[in-house]
Amino acid sequence: MKIIAIDNKKLGLKEAAIPIPKDDEVLIRIKAAGVNRADIAQKNGLYPPPPGASDILGLECSGIIESVGKEVTSKNPGDEVMALLSGGGYAEYVTCPEHHAIHKPASLDWIEAASIPEVYATCWLNLFVEGSMKEGDKVVFHAGASGIGTAGIQLARAFGCSSFVSASSKKKIDFCIDLGASAGAIRAEDIFAQIKNWAPEGVDIILDPVGAAYLENNLTVLGLEGRLIIIGLMGGVQSNINLGHLMMKRQKIIGSTIRARSQETKNVIIKELSDKVLPLFSSGTLKPIVHEALPFSECESAHSIMEANENIGKIILHLS
Amino acid sequence: MKIIAIDNKKLGLKEAAIPIPKDDEVLIRIKAAGVNRADIAQKNGLYPPPPGASDILGLECSGIIESVGKEVTSKNPGDEVMALLSGGGYAEYVTCPEHHAIHKPASLDWIEAASIPEVYATCWLNLFVEGSMKEGDKVVFHAGASGIGTAGIQLARAFGCSSFVSASSKKKIDFCIDLGASAGAIRAEDIFAQIKNWAPEGVDIILDPVGAAYLENNLTVLGLEGRLIIIGLMGGVQSNINLGHLMMKRQKIIGSTIRARSQETKNVIIKELSDKVLPLFSSGTLKPIVHEALPFSECESAHSIMEANENIGKIILHLS
Repeated sequence: MKIIAIDNKKLGLKEAAIPIPKDDEVLIRIKAAGVNRADIAQKNGLYPPPPGASDILGLECSGIIESVGKEVTSKNPGDEVMALLSGGGYAEYVTCPEHHAIHKPASLDWIEAASIPEVYATCWLNLFVEGSMKEGDKVVFHAGASGIGTAGIQLARAFGCSSFVSASSKKKIDFCIDLGASAGAIRAEDIFAQIKNWAPEGVDIILDPVGAAYLENNLTVLGLEGRLIIIGLMGGVQSNINLGHLMMKRQKIIGSTIRARSQETKNVIIKELSDKVLPLFSSGTLKPIVHEALPFSECESAHSIMEANENIGKIILHLS
Repeated sequence: MKIIAIDNKKLGLKEAAIPIPKDDEVLIRIKAAGVNRADIAQKNGLYPPPPGASDILGLECSGIIESVGKEVTSKNPGDEVMALLSGGGYAEYVTCPEHHAIHKPASLDWIEAASIPEVYATCWLNLFVEGSMKEGDKVVFHAGASGIGTAGIQLARAFGCSSFVSASSKKKIDFCIDLGASAGAIRAEDIFAQIKNWAPEGVDIILDPVGAAYLENNLTVLGLEGRLIIIGLMGGVQSNINLGHLMMKRQKIIGSTIRARSQETKNVIIKELSDKVLPLFSSGTLKPIVHEALPFSECESAHSIMEANENIGKIILHLS
C-alpha cells in the first residue's frame, strides 16, 4: 500500500505492507485522513508514538471496513466508518480496535467524516470528562480557529455554554463568532484583559494548547473552581506559578493528551461521541469545519498550511 | 458566654453574646474544640474568615444541642453531636447549619469527637472527591503526623491503599508506620528519592500542605494520571513548574480548601463521613489521634505546641 513517510522531517509517498488486524481489530481502507498538530510534532521528532502504535503519522480517518479480526462483532466488511487512531492514518489502510471506529452518518461525506474523530474526541474528553463542563459554563478556547477550537466552540454552544476565543487574526475571530463564540481577542492584543472583561467573575474552563507562555495569565482569569486543561505546549514548558491563587480559588490544572490513553478510556469516549455528538451532525446543530482537503500527494502542502497557522478548522488528506 | 479572642496575635478569654441560630441552624453548647493550622493563620491575619462566618477561631467541635432553628428536622435539644464549623469553635456556644453537625458515636468521648470533623472532612473531600482515590492507590502524605496526616494514613489503609509519609522526626515517622503507613522519610533527608524508591512507577495521590517548596519534586514523583492536591502553603506560594511532565503524564494539580465551600458541598461530605467513616470508629478500624487536650484557659499553650510542630495528631481545647 501507499503511505506518507517521513524522511528527514519531509513527507513523501512510499510503499509499505498492508497491516494485519488483530483479533479485536478492524482493517480500514482509508478514504480520507485528518491532519493534526501532533503529526507535525511527530514529524519533527518531538512526539514519539506510544508503545504499540504505528509509526506512520495520522490520528484519524474515514474509510470502508476491508476485513475484521475474528473477535470483532460490531463491524462488518463494507461498513462505512470514521475512526480515532493511535497512528497510521496517512496510509491506504490502517488497523484499529473495533470500537475506535464508528459508523459514518450518511449526512457526512468522506472528507467531513475524517475531520471529526480526533478533535471531537479531544474536546469531549477534555470539556466533559476532565473539565466537568455543565450548562452555563464560560469556556475559553485558545487557538479558537483550530480544529479543536472550532469543534469546542460548537460543542459549548450545543450544550448551553458560552465561549471566548483567542486567535491570530480578526478574520479567525469573526469566523469563531459566526460559529457561536460570544467574543474573542487577537493574540497581538491583551487577550487576558479582554477575557477579564468578558467574565469579571472568572471563567470556568480554559482549553489551552499554549502552555507556559499563558499559564500565569490563564490562572488569573480562571474563576472559583475553574479548570485549566493543558493540551499542548506551543508556548513552552517552563513557567512560574503562584499557588496561592490556585489554592484559595480551588482551581485545577489538568495535563491531558488523548493518544496514549488506554483502549478502554477511548472506547468510552467514542461511545459517548457516537451517542451524544454524531446525532448533532445529522440534525445540523454541529457542522464539520474543513479548511482545505488535499490529495495524499500534496501532504507537504497540507503540513505547510498548518505550520503557517493559516487554517480555520481542519486540513484533510484524501485518497481519490 | 466565654470565647477565646485574639488580641494582637495573642489569645485570651473574653465575654461575648451567645449566637442565635438561624432557621436552618442549631446552637451547640461546646464540650471541646479542635485546633487547626488554619486557626494559627487566621490569628496572624493570614486567613480571614469567609463572608458570613464567625470571626471567632475554631473549625470543629463536639457538644450538646442547646436549641434548634424552626426549620431544623434532624437534630433536637439534648442531642450529642460533633460539628464542622466555618468558625466559632473557640467558644462556649456556636451555631452551624443542622447538617454540619452529626450525632456523636457513643464510642467516642467529647475530646475524641472534637478531633474528627475538620481533618476527616478534609481528607474525605480531598482523597475521595478531588483525588478519586481507589483501592490499590499509592498515596503520599506530607506532614504525615499532623491531624490530617494521621487521619489520611488511616483512611488510606481502611480503603485498601498504601501510604508514604514525610515528617520532621523519626519518632513521627515511626508513629505513622504504626498507624498504617508503609514507609516514611524525615524532612531533613531526601524524601523525594525515598518516595521514588517506594513507588518507582510514581504515586497516585499526594496530599500536600507545603506548596511551592515541594511542587517540582512532587510532580516528579507523581505517576501517570496522578493527582497533586495542595491544601496548604507552608512552603511558600511562588514556584517554577515544568508543564511538559504534567501534560505527558496527564497529571492534575488541584488547589483545595474546605472552609469556604458551599453549604451543599459540606452537607454531602458530612453525609458521607457519617455513612462511611464514623462506623469505622465504632468498629475500631479508625482511631482518633489526640496529642494533647488542654482547657480553654490554656489556649496559648495549645497554639504554641502546634507552632513548634511538636504534635502527633490533634490538639484539643476543652471546657470542663
